[in-house]
Amino acid sequence: MIKIGIIGGTGYTGVELLRLLAAHPQADLRVITSRGEAGKKVADLFPNLRGHVKLAFTEPDTKALAGCDVVFSATPNGVAMTHARELLKAGVKLIDLAADFRLKDPALWEKWYGVPHACPELLEEAVYGLPEVNREKIREARLVANPGCYPTAVQLGFLPLLENGLVDVQHLIADAKSGVSGAGRKAETHLLFSEAADTMKAYGVAGHRHWPEIRQGLEAVLGKSVGLTFVPHLTPMIRGIHATLYARLTLPGADLQSLYEQRYANEPFVDVMPAGSHPETRSVRVSNVCRIAVHRPQGGDTVVVLSVIDNLVKGAAGQAVQNMNILFGLDERAGLRQAGVLP
Amino acid sequence: MIKIGIIGGTGYTGVELLRLLAAHPQADLRVITSRGEAGKKVADLFPNLRGHVKLAFTEPDTKALAGCDVVFSATPNGVAMTHARELLKAGVKLIDLAADFRLKDPALWEKWYGVPHACPELLEEAVYGLPEVNREKIREARLVANPGCYPTAVQLGFLPLLENGLVDVQHLIADAKSGVSGAGRKAETHLLFSEAADTMKAYGVAGHRHWPEIRQGLEAVLGKSVGLTFVPHLTPMIRGIHATLYARLTLPGADLQSLYEQRYANEPFVDVMPAGSHPETRSVRVSNVCRIAVHRPQGGDTVVVLSVIDNLVKGAAGQAVQNMNILFGLDERAGLRQAGVLP
Amino acid sequence: MIKIGIIGGTGYTGVELLRLLAAHPQADLRVITSRGEAGKKVADLFPNLRGHVKLAFTEPDTKALAGCDVVFSATPNGVAMTHARELLKAGVKLIDLAADFRLKDPALWEKWYGVPHACPELLEEAVYGLPEVNREKIREARLVANPGCYPTAVQLGFLPLLENGLVDVQHLIADAKSGVSGAGRKAETHLLFSEAADTMKAYGVAGHRHWPEIRQGLEAVLGKSVGLTFVPHLTPMIRGIHATLYARLTLPGADLQSLYEQRYANEPFVDVMPAGSHPETRSVRVSNVCRIAVHRPQGGDTVVVLSVIDNLVKGAAGQAVQNMNILFGLDERAGLRQAGVLP
Amino acid sequence: MIKIGIIGGTGYTGVELLRLLAAHPQADLRVITSRGEAGKKVADLFPNLRGHVKLAFTEPDTKALAGCDVVFSATPNGVAMTHARELLKAGVKLIDLAADFRLKDPALWEKWYGVPHACPELLEEAVYGLPEVNREKIREARLVANPGCYPTAVQLGFLPLLENGLVDVQHLIADAKSGVSGAGRKAETHLLFSEAADTMKAYGVAGHRHWPEIRQGLEAVLGKSVGLTFVPHLTPMIRGIHATLYARLTLPGADLQSLYEQRYANEPFVDVMPAGSHPETRSVRVSNVCRIAVHRPQGGDTVVVLSVIDNLVKGAAGQAVQNMNILFGLDERAGLRQAGVLP
Repeated sequence: MIKIGIIGGTGYTGVELLRLLAAHPQADLRVITSRGEAGKKVADLFPNLRGHVKLAFTEPDTKALAGCDVVFSATPNGVAMTHARELLKAGVKLIDLAADFRLKDPALWEKWYGVPHACPELLEEAVYGLPEVNREKIREARLVANPGCYPTAVQLGFLPLLENGLVDVQHLIADAKSGVSGAGRKAETHLLFSEAADTMKAYGVAGHRHWPEIRQGLEAVLGKSVGLTFVPHLTPMIRGIHATLYARLTLPGADLQSLYEQRYANEPFVDVMPAGSHPETRSVRVSNVCRIAVHRPQGGDTVVVLSVIDNLVKGAAGQAVQNMNILFGLDERAGLRQAGVLP
Repeated sequence: MIKIGIIGGTGYTGVELLRLLAAHPQADLRVITSRGEAGKKVADLFPNLRGHVKLAFTEPDTKALAGCDVVFSATPNGVAMTHARELLKAGVKLIDLAADFRLKDPALWEKWYGVPHACPELLEEAVYGLPEVNREKIREARLVANPGCYPTAVQLGFLPLLENGLVDVQHLIADAKSGVSGAGRKAETHLLFSEAADTMKAYGVAGHRHWPEIRQGLEAVLGKSVGLTFVPHLTPMIRGIHATLYARLTLPGADLQSLYEQRYANEPFVDVMPAGSHPETRSVRVSNVCRIAVHRPQGGDTVVVLSVIDNLVKGAAGQAVQNMNILFGLDERAGLRQAGVLP
Repeated sequence: MIKIGIIGGTGYTGVELLRLLAAHPQADLRVITSRGEAGKKVADLFPNLRGHVKLAFTEPDTKALAGCDVVFSATPNGVAMTHARELLKAGVKLIDLAADFRLKDPALWEKWYGVPHACPELLEEAVYGLPEVNREKIREARLVANPGCYPTAVQLGFLPLLENGLVDVQHLIADAKSGVSGAGRKAETHLLFSEAADTMKAYGVAGHRHWPEIRQGLEAVLGKSVGLTFVPHLTPMIRGIHATLYARLTLPGADLQSLYEQRYANEPFVDVMPAGSHPETRSVRVSNVCRIAVHRPQGGDTVVVLSVIDNLVKGAAGQAVQNMNILFGLDERAGLRQAGVLP
Repeated sequence: MIKIGIIGGTGYTGVELLRLLAAHPQADLRVITSRGEAGKKVADLFPNLRGHVKLAFTEPDTKALAGCDVVFSATPNGVAMTHARELLKAGVKLIDLAADFRLKDPALWEKWYGVPHACPELLEEAVYGLPEVNREKIREARLVANPGCYPTAVQLGFLPLLENGLVDVQHLIADAKSGVSGAGRKAETHLLFSEAADTMKAYGVAGHRHWPEIRQGLEAVLGKSVGLTFVPHLTPMIRGIHATLYARLTLPGADLQSLYEQRYANEPFVDVMPAGSHPETRSVRVSNVCRIAVHRPQGGDTVVVLSVIDNLVKGAAGQAVQNMNILFGLDERAGLRQAGVLP
């Protein structure tokens, strides 16, 4: 059994992580910390976990965490980096579900997250935890930067095009729609039911923190700079991301369907749909799968890729568990076999 | 492994049953029949099951079903009763998720369901599959009538009051709110998103088919006639039933909280919340649990019971699997350990 | 034209009031105050009002308000009572959309609202603004206490039964379901989209502030004490209240349908539906109508009344405008002719 | 008063048209026909119209319609073209809310709508009813083809770019998200609440009927062929279209904000938001406004336009009333002054 600690865990990625780990055959959940909820039972905050999680939140305490094999940090941005050095020194593996270790360049991090990075020397070492790209590096990592939700859906959708040099990489477009849980469990007016139901809006068109993350990921694969327009939208659903990707084909003759199928043939959590399909976000709700379809409307030179995930699973907690499974040599599917829940 | 057949399975109770059985450690899904979808792969109709269910729908065929250990009938009302005799004769156990075997009195059945019953002689033998009342009988049954969704939530909420003779049983009130999936996967105008979202209505106030079912269940426990007002409401959520029950206390001194806790102390799927709680339907979403709270507002003589279930799990497919587990002597929790999904 | 001031107006009753007054043929909106938003244009906070409201929020300033004919207070509870004396002294009529003047007994007010009342001498004078009961008194009032949303739906539903002495008034039950906007535009976790969508729960079963308000209203009509169990529920819709009322008939022979039709025959904003109807909340969405149906299931001794309103219109801003119309001798329908918006 | 007839009117554009006309100061609603609902009162089908519309549906009857000044056809595609000749001959103006007269080329119409056109000779005469482009032609028209919902939002968003020759017109992208009411009031499984709530999907990527309509409209303005990728998405909201438009700037120096503001300065129903804005669909819910914002992320060469409408108002019934106002020389705003309803 793997001894597990969680820092934070009162947000949506936290409760989802708890739900997944509570059912994971090799997980031994030892510690969960929260400054705000210390002393409260997890199941009192999240009644769905009554009978599944017996732990109570405790005050953040690096010593208790240092006795774990792995610690998940499910806090707001900027917290994991204050714990990382000490945990790694104690021989604990760290999987950060926030953004602290996603960007390689400390200056870029500071620009987008507004504070200097607390341990820039770890940025290089941290492995970006997208298994479909970095599986071998994750296996050897001490510190995994779990990808953002939009970046997961967008990169998995674009990868086969970029890896095969098929499109104009200076003009990629990602029009992404997210359920409201993607914004977290924060008491902010614009996230209220009465504000976010029965309506739709774009946001962050001028610049969203996932834009540099996606670019960095695509550029790492491509080995050169990419141009990306990324427009996220807040959509009236709880979970789910639907990324609609557009690129101009420079090699129009390619058999895109085969290409996608081959690229992901051995991936346990990427499902390429039959030609002509339109994946729904609910088909992956509560599951760790990314479902993708590729289209070339009217046989023109624009390729359209549809990529859907559950933002809290493959876009956060599920991918973190997948990374844990890789880190510890477990079956990558352990604890993640849940089918999508429909309806 | 238990060899399993499903009749029907293209509706919401069907897809939920498939999802649960696909993850059940002792289930060997052999046959699924559907006149309308014969030849189509299950996973083409329900893409959430891609990678989980390999079967295709076949034409209804009693011979194939007769080779199973148990058959679930997940069809509209009136179909299971046309298969029952033959299946039972072949030694197959039958669990009907529709209403065909729920009412004991064939005349009552005909009154509420509009056609004569096709095998009235089986009504007496059929066991009403509410494990919290009939566990021992279910163990020995050949034919289980899986309860309706409203009846499950309402009966579990009322039982401790009636078993202990605490209330005026002539004036019970059940105000029940259901998610739209309770109405099934039928292409009817009033169930359209644009008709059922952002609105609420009562329906069937003059009489709903679950009214005689609830009364029969309560009367069986009580040994005498009960008076019940039952008002169902269509609520803009996909899953979930919230039953709010009202009764007048005739023994106002009773410690209702203890009474409920004791009654359900050993029940794996009934969770009595602490005093003062307000269970949410989402706390049981995708789980087989019924969560209950009992209140006595302002210390008056009216008791208020709040009882929530997922209508597709404890109110349908999950309870059916629970009944299968009992029938075959498995751990009653097998395949049903999923925590509620929140958010 | 009537010169109008608004105190507050940054919440949901505020924006609804602004929308209604902007289209009211006799309304001249002069001042709107908000401590938090002073200096901001109304239409910058509420972009639906672009082109309809040119005003900006200003700091609270009794002098500016004193130049109005009528002031609406659309603030949280406890604010209107700090302005009331001065405004009334200045000859301004005051319509309070919060709860400050709804209860007649200052001790009861303090018990439920947690602070002593700031001007208890005005409680007696204030007229409870339910036109269907108090139209004549409203006409002469200086100070109108606009009713709560639940109390409007519940009282209009119960009135004909109580006025005619038809039911056991010691055991009234009101099971009420509200859209989330009823909780206001407050950044609280439990009101987030991801918390309140696709789920349902009761709340405040032990005691809700609208309980004493409803009782007081019913007792005023009846002339004696009533017993009421009131259970509110949070429902995943933006607007709408659906009150399901239960009472035991003591005079079972009465023709309830005629009684309701006669009682409300001349009311412009109460619509008694034909026998057997089930009103939907969306049928009154954005309209000032209360739609009611009365049932007697299975001809028993329990009467069931279904009463629906838009909580922000007939349950708040619309009723406030209706009261203004009465106060100033206008056509009671002025500015309130909008039909329900469906779908 | 203008004498008005409606053919059809049992769908969502129908009920919205009825709601708008019932409140229109110059509308005299005379006839409404429906084969399926003949004899039924409008207000029995749509209870929100109780007290507002007294008419009953009648059998389709050209004679009764011929006595009107204008007839709106709010039927499925393919019906209006069977009435058009006769109505025009009788001197009645015809506004078709379906697609029968939107495409100029009968062959193209047949290709996309699957049947030959019944009166191809009228296609040339019909005026495409987008007032922001064709106001003067509409004024003189006998036959107005009311635009589709997506085409309205997309064209209004692209127009200033195309009219000023600022972008690569061979690679326009329109990623459009629609509320479910856009699919009509049809009893189809995929439109059920339990299928369409809490999920999102693209559809018709290979080809949607609004694609040729949008292209024709843009090409008419531009005077040459355009290349357009159009991806519609079904979104879990009742009303609203959010079109997110992408184009590559060929003249990057242009002041896009001023350009948009000038283009629409005199348009009563197009509202260009301040720079940096993100319009929400709910800001135009129930109103006839199209709200637009224009962005150029990171100062790059890709322009992003956000364009929102209420699909049933500016995208259907409201625009039809606007066209009627133009046809009869009324104030273009008559009956359409309603602000957006928020929340």
